Amino acid sequence: MFEKFDENQAMIRKQISAWLEEDIGTGDISSMSTISSVHQSQGIIHVKQEGWMAGIPVAEMVFDLIDPALCFTRITEEGAFVAAGTIIAKVEGSTRSILAGERLALNLLQRMSGIATQTRAYVGALEGASVKVTDTRKTTPGLRLLEKYAVRIGGGYNHRFGLYDAVMIKDNHIKGAGGITNAIQQARERIPHTMKIEVEVEHFLQLNEALAAKPDIIMLDNMNLESMKAAVALIRHTHSHIMIEASGGVSLATIKDIAATGVDIISVGALTHSVPSLDISLDLNERKETKQP
Amino acid sequence: MFEKFDENQAMIRKQISAWLEEDIGTGDISSMSTISSVHQSQGIIHVKQEGWMAGIPVAEMVFDLIDPALCFTRITEEGAFVAAGTIIAKVEGSTRSILAGERLALNLLQRMSGIATQTRAYVGALEGASVKVTDTRKTTPGLRLLEKYAVRIGGGYNHRFGLYDAVMIKDNHIKGAGGITNAIQQARERIPHTMKIEVEVEHFLQLNEALAAKPDIIMLDNMNLESMKAAVALIRHTHSHIMIEASGGVSLATIKDIAATGVDIISVGALTHSVPSLDISLDLNERKETKQP
Amino acid sequence: MFEKFDENQAMIRKQISAWLEEDIGTGDISSMSTISSVHQSQGIIHVKQEGWMAGIPVAEMVFDLIDPALCFTRITEEGAFVAAGTIIAKVEGSTRSILAGERLALNLLQRMSGIATQTRAYVGALEGASVKVTDTRKTTPGLRLLEKYAVRIGGGYNHRFGLYDAVMIKDNHIKGAGGITNAIQQARERIPHTMKIEVEVEHFLQLNEALAAKPDIIMLDNMNLESMKAAVALIRHTHSHIMIEASGGVSLATIKDIAATGVDIISVGALTHSVPSLDISLDLNERKETKQP
Amino acid sequence: MFEKFDENQAMIRKQISAWLEEDIGTGDISSMSTISSVHQSQGIIHVKQEGWMAGIPVAEMVFDLIDPALCFTRITEEGAFVAAGTIIAKVEGSTRSILAGERLALNLLQRMSGIATQTRAYVGALEGASVKVTDTRKTTPGLRLLEKYAVRIGGGYNHRFGLYDAVMIKDNHIKGAGGITNAIQQARERIPHTMKIEVEVEHFLQLNEALAAKPDIIMLDNMNLESMKAAVALIRHTHSHIMIEASGGVSLATIKDIAATGVDIISVGALTHSVPSLDISLDLNERKETKQP
Amino acid sequence: MFEKFDENQAMIRKQISAWLEEDIGTGDISSMSTISSVHQSQGIIHVKQEGWMAGIPVAEMVFDLIDPALCFTRITEEGAFVAAGTIIAKVEGSTRSILAGERLALNLLQRMSGIATQTRAYVGALEGASVKVTDTRKTTPGLRLLEKYAVRIGGGYNHRFGLYDAVMIKDNHIKGAGGITNAIQQARERIPHTMKIEVEVEHFLQLNEALAAKPDIIMLDNMNLESMKAAVALIRHTHSHIMIEASGGVSLATIKDIAATGVDIISVGALTHSVPSLDISLDLNERKETKQP
Amino acid sequence: MFEKFDENQAMIRKQISAWLEEDIGTGDISSMSTISSVHQSQGIIHVKQEGWMAGIPVAEMVFDLIDPALCFTRITEEGAFVAAGTIIAKVEGSTRSILAGERLALNLLQRMSGIATQTRAYVGALEGASVKVTDTRKTTPGLRLLEKYAVRIGGGYNHRFGLYDAVMIKDNHIKGAGGITNAIQQARERIPHTMKIEVEVEHFLQLNEALAAKPDIIMLDNMNLESMKAAVALIRHTHSHIMIEASGGVSLATIKDIAATGVDIISVGALTHSVPSLDISLDLNERKETKQP
Repeated sequence: MFEKFDENQAMIRKQISAWLEEDIGTGDISSMSTISSVHQSQGIIHVKQEGWMAGIPVAEMVFDLIDPALCFTRITEEGAFVAAGTIIAKVEGSTRSILAGERLALNLLQRMSGIATQTRAYVGALEGASVKVTDTRKTTPGLRLLEKYAVRIGGGYNHRFGLYDAVMIKDNHIKGAGGITNAIQQARERIPHTMKIEVEVEHFLQLNEALAAKPDIIMLDNMNLESMKAAVALIRHTHSHIMIEASGGVSLATIKDIAATGVDIISVGALTHSVPSLDISLDLNERKETKQP
Repeated sequence: MFEKFDENQAMIRKQISAWLEEDIGTGDISSMSTISSVHQSQGIIHVKQEGWMAGIPVAEMVFDLIDPALCFTRITEEGAFVAAGTIIAKVEGSTRSILAGERLALNLLQRMSGIATQTRAYVGALEGASVKVTDTRKTTPGLRLLEKYAVRIGGGYNHRFGLYDAVMIKDNHIKGAGGITNAIQQARERIPHTMKIEVEVEHFLQLNEALAAKPDIIMLDNMNLESMKAAVALIRHTHSHIMIEASGGVSLATIKDIAATGVDIISVGALTHSVPSLDISLDLNERKETKQP
Repeated sequence: MFEKFDENQAMIRKQISAWLEEDIGTGDISSMSTISSVHQSQGIIHVKQEGWMAGIPVAEMVFDLIDPALCFTRITEEGAFVAAGTIIAKVEGSTRSILAGERLALNLLQRMSGIATQTRAYVGALEGASVKVTDTRKTTPGLRLLEKYAVRIGGGYNHRFGLYDAVMIKDNHIKGAGGITNAIQQARERIPHTMKIEVEVEHFLQLNEALAAKPDIIMLDNMNLESMKAAVALIRHTHSHIMIEASGGVSLATIKDIAATGVDIISVGALTHSVPSLDISLDLNERKETKQP
Repeated sequence: MFEKFDENQAMIRKQISAWLEEDIGTGDISSMSTISSVHQSQGIIHVKQEGWMAGIPVAEMVFDLIDPALCFTRITEEGAFVAAGTIIAKVEGSTRSILAGERLALNLLQRMSGIATQTRAYVGALEGASVKVTDTRKTTPGLRLLEKYAVRIGGGYNHRFGLYDAVMIKDNHIKGAGGITNAIQQARERIPHTMKIEVEVEHFLQLNEALAAKPDIIMLDNMNLESMKAAVALIRHTHSHIMIEASGGVSLATIKDIAATGVDIISVGALTHSVPSLDISLDLNERKETKQP
Repeated sequence: MFEKFDENQAMIRKQISAWLEEDIGTGDISSMSTISSVHQSQGIIHVKQEGWMAGIPVAEMVFDLIDPALCFTRITEEGAFVAAGTIIAKVEGSTRSILAGERLALNLLQRMSGIATQTRAYVGALEGASVKVTDTRKTTPGLRLLEKYAVRIGGGYNHRFGLYDAVMIKDNHIKGAGGITNAIQQARERIPHTMKIEVEVEHFLQLNEALAAKPDIIMLDNMNLESMKAAVALIRHTHSHIMIEASGGVSLATIKDIAATGVDIISVGALTHSVPSLDISLDLNERKETKQP
Repeated sequence: MFEKFDENQAMIRKQISAWLEEDIGTGDISSMSTISSVHQSQGIIHVKQEGWMAGIPVAEMVFDLIDPALCFTRITEEGAFVAAGTIIAKVEGSTRSILAGERLALNLLQRMSGIATQTRAYVGALEGASVKVTDTRKTTPGLRLLEKYAVRIGGGYNHRFGLYDAVMIKDNHIKGAGGITNAIQQARERIPHTMKIEVEVEHFLQLNEALAAKPDIIMLDNMNLESMKAAVALIRHTHSHIMIEASGGVSLATIKDIAATGVDIISVGALTHSVPSLDISLDLNERKETKQP
């Protein structure tokens, strides 16, 4: 009940409308010129590759925006693991409407399921460790909400949504502010008290300066495993309320060892960029009963 | 001079504005709270992986939309092959402005250069054969114009831009129209004479029916090499004006053999979906001269 | 079933909303201040001049966007010839809502029916010749989709929809490219293989150069009948696959002779510009039953 | 100085952008594929038919929105009468940019100059009578501001801009309100005191009822000349502050006689609908100096 | 029936959508993370302070735009006087949806009821004098339509809606035009005959000049009571058709005396700016019946 | 340098454009009909009431969006205290442009300066206590960014910006989640680790439950001073990392006592709702030099 697709739906519907306009433009000339406006079909959406499904409610929204008279039936649960060949949904109604939405619905399903499946792989590699795997801001322009939702479906967690909802003090901010101490103090003085401050450190000199300024989260950036372990020990010992995030160079091969250093969170850019799409397609069956004009 | 980024610029600027709003939201709280509004920097954009560059003028647009006072200098030519470590562009001015645009500029550059590099690989695999490699409609929602441009930068060609600019009669249209003959005749009767008709065939029965109806392009869909060769021979012999496109199951391993069958065009979905991003990043250097408030 | 109004409906609804805002602004002050919000009426839309009807589904959309509770009944078939006095549709419901949509609905119906009627005149003047009459890009800004649809309703055909869906090489492109040969070759090298190339020629020197470069369509621009006949003969003889379009100075008086030269297509700017509107109006009858507040 | 184009410029720029998108779509494929991006030209806009010019600043806005680097020079004054062959403006710069804006600029110029010329004819037919000729709401959807401006350029006056800026009580409002007296009283009670009330009357019974309720303007709707004269006499005699408008069946043949009845205003739907466009075109000259890439 | 909320609903819905996006952004993270998507509640909207209610249909629109499945029941009539503690409406359905709309609905109700209550106070202070109290353009940016509607609900009248629907000649226009006579004559010559001209005068010199030029309305700006009385007498005596408006320094303490000078209209900026909000809140009750997922 | 107006400028410019359209509509008919398009003036913006200035850069943006050729000069520093009569800015250029922007610029300045002045009063009442005064979400729809900025200018702090950037668990969430423990645990499990959780408690039973679940912030809602003091003591003793916010019934009379209870933050709805505007106006002086047409 909580994994439901609950981001701002009005915002997503507006984006889907824009994406439909990108594909359909002035009209789907192929369907308009070859298929009667009263022809009815049933579209079967099935996966051709095993994986975890994400985006079924988004595909439903696509068809609903094209033509509210289409009837969409979910067959697989959002978030389920499916074997190759599984039928995940059906959509029935005007053949022209189904074809107009097909490509966008599939493009979104393939990418979102690809992300959920990739996320599952990272989460699975931890074998039950209590570390949280999070995404980053390396998402596709325009698709951030959908991709972050897909990460949650895959068992991952979200990092901040954008530049507006948390302070992340990186290398460049440290330079600009004239040091970590300054950066953290200035931020704390200016931001809402409801917002957290995370600071990125690369070595112990920075770590010690950061600890003294008491951020909410410390990110260990591109440290090796030994340093990470030592950093975790130091933070836990002296500032037990500070959360610890590891970042940089995380892969399926390394994530288990990183988790073993004791960090709380591992953020992984690869959850949303360079993700292989899951192969999904739509087949049409003609329906006997033809709608009366 | 002709490879320049020439798609509808107003359309692309509107999209970039929307993508910036997705990331920045109500404001970049990290920069606003840690870096002075008069602090100046120089951002160095460099690649960390060899590949073909695409998207430099798009990155320039991103920074220009954030803050027209930023000065962007292209160092590498759009479309060039670059080694790891190459600096491709510099952007100078307000540190806050540079940081606000950094993520979007990199996300676009990485994806577009990834596509150009992938396309080069496919084109290169043909070793000089005269076949054209084209993209498909399997592009990222909202990024079709940019991704199709990146394909051209990589030496590929574009297929139709959407459902509105060419007729593509597929399996589903054939079913809906009651046969290939019907579908082609109806389309020809209804569409602008300035538009082409392409029809997809899977076997010789369909091919023969298609030839009789004289489409402009025939797509051989998922045929094996033997059938493809025979189909090409038949078409060339009887209807020399018809273009031949191959599609389905194209990979770097198979494209050379497919080209050898004599087809004119090979369309490859993988040019734009499941493409690994090229690793590109931005480093900041503080500038001595600080702007007077 | 195929003449239905099938252009991208979402796009048209957006335009109608903007047009309603142009007319209604902050509110219809006359109705709001004189007619009760529960007053109900029946609006009768009738023509005052004979002609061919186009735009009835568009008028329906106008009233639906104003107030989905209005009930619109089509009485005349879209595309029908109607005598003066014919009732073409009825709309029932809130008097205020009917009056708010009246002007826009009529403005669109009058213009679209004017175009359909004008197109019929041109098509009729051909007395059964197999030539196709097409529109041009001389449409009203913002109304291109609706006006091109009205041309089809009137028995005409559409030329390209905009600058994006076909290559049309005119005088200026020839100058810019340094000759017809260059222009056609460069275009063919760059554009999607799904797109056609049309080239405009004014005399035989150009025609011969064009033929050698094998465009898909040749437009004979402002040629006299003798030259046109000779041009058609030459093209048919040497390049039977090339379509031939005539353009320039086409009127009801000349179209039959132009058709007799053997061209395939005649494009007529007058189909959509300088078209007399068809006189159509809406009368209100009060409804007995008044809606309960 | 007062005839300048002074309507809300931001609103008009937004519309022009939308109209450009309608024509250019994803890009001007003809120019992009045949003309180098550094090619420069000079476009000469000239009329092929005599008439009164309207829309030159609008054409300038079109080219400015396409490409701010284009240089537009007005040669003819807005509102001037020009002979066939007159050059009215020049536009210099990127050939691609000029061609991208050509069609929209001409479509607007032709329609607006057509309206100005038509309006001049009606105004001229009055031979100096002090009556004002006004437009109506029968304008092209989306072009109301531009068309009403063109009417002013042609020497006419504007009627209300939409449903929001004046009360116009017509037949249907009278029915809905239960009589003229009621309608006028209710309107006066509800509307801003800054707004006028105009009422439409068809015969003397209505006129007498209207006069008793003291509207600001009375419109004599479709009355014959005799009745009109008598109505004017009655109104002038009893309610000298009420303005008198004539409407219905106004043509170039009848307007002089209508003016002679003594009315203050004659509103003419034909000023903006069914107007013949003025023939205007753009020729390109190549410029010697080519911009350095 | 006439006090209904009748401004352009499409325009208001668009604004409400934008305001919801301002508050909800990417999603209501509190509700999404703590309340099940199937949890149902009943929200009770009640006032905590006596006053006149305005905005109930606007609050209904807010909840309808969030989630059309919510059921909103009006309990108090729009425009009614309510005692502290009165329940004015109920909204039932998804708890998440109710909470997402709560803040915006209350913010609008509080402000609009505050304006209606303030307006009632001014109208009440006149104790039945026939003077009309109007608002000004000192409204909150973006809320003009809603605030002007709230003024009407409170028994006040609207002044012009913006710069576009009436001519108001102020000090600055008089300077710019070179005098009152010039300003009025130029305006009358240029504007639609359906529009009124109001002129602002500060003393008798200006008043006499204004009277000679015969505007439709004269505004006495910041005059003392004696001068106002004298001005009214002069105008009534010589130009009985001219309306008289008083403006400047109007308060609850002075309005009665101003009315006694005999003016027709008193415009009061304080109706819409610096208005105390009425205290209104929403309480949730859980519903027994939980919706089946 | 850090108090600068740094929220997302693109977002604010878009809003200002919409607000200008609300006021100007189709055009400023008064200026257009009385003032020459080449007339130049200088507008002097001065305050008529002492207070703290906020919104000067916003006023500048308004005039820049109307007409980039206007020259705006800031005279008073943003955030300064000014006496009645102080000139805060000048704007020079086209008289028509200045008048078109005047009302919106003043409406914004008055409201924002009113908020800054109100905030100063609350901050001043604390006489140097280290408590932070924050705003709430009770802002004007559409003006949240500007009003929250004005609070900062007045020496206050911002609470969360909307429903998307922090978790605030209120009464209704507690009911929906089945208790405080559940609500906090579920939220922590689902939200980004970069986000804080604030919980609202009304009495000690709730406080104890809340403390056990370790939120980041506890809000003491409408507690009396004794309870507040006891609650602060308990929290400080047992959970020193938790921030404490007081809310409800805060006024200038009570804030000092509330601060004395030892809370960290006091949130005050009255900072942004029911705020009296500061009286600010614009006077025009004609400029000698008139621009050449």
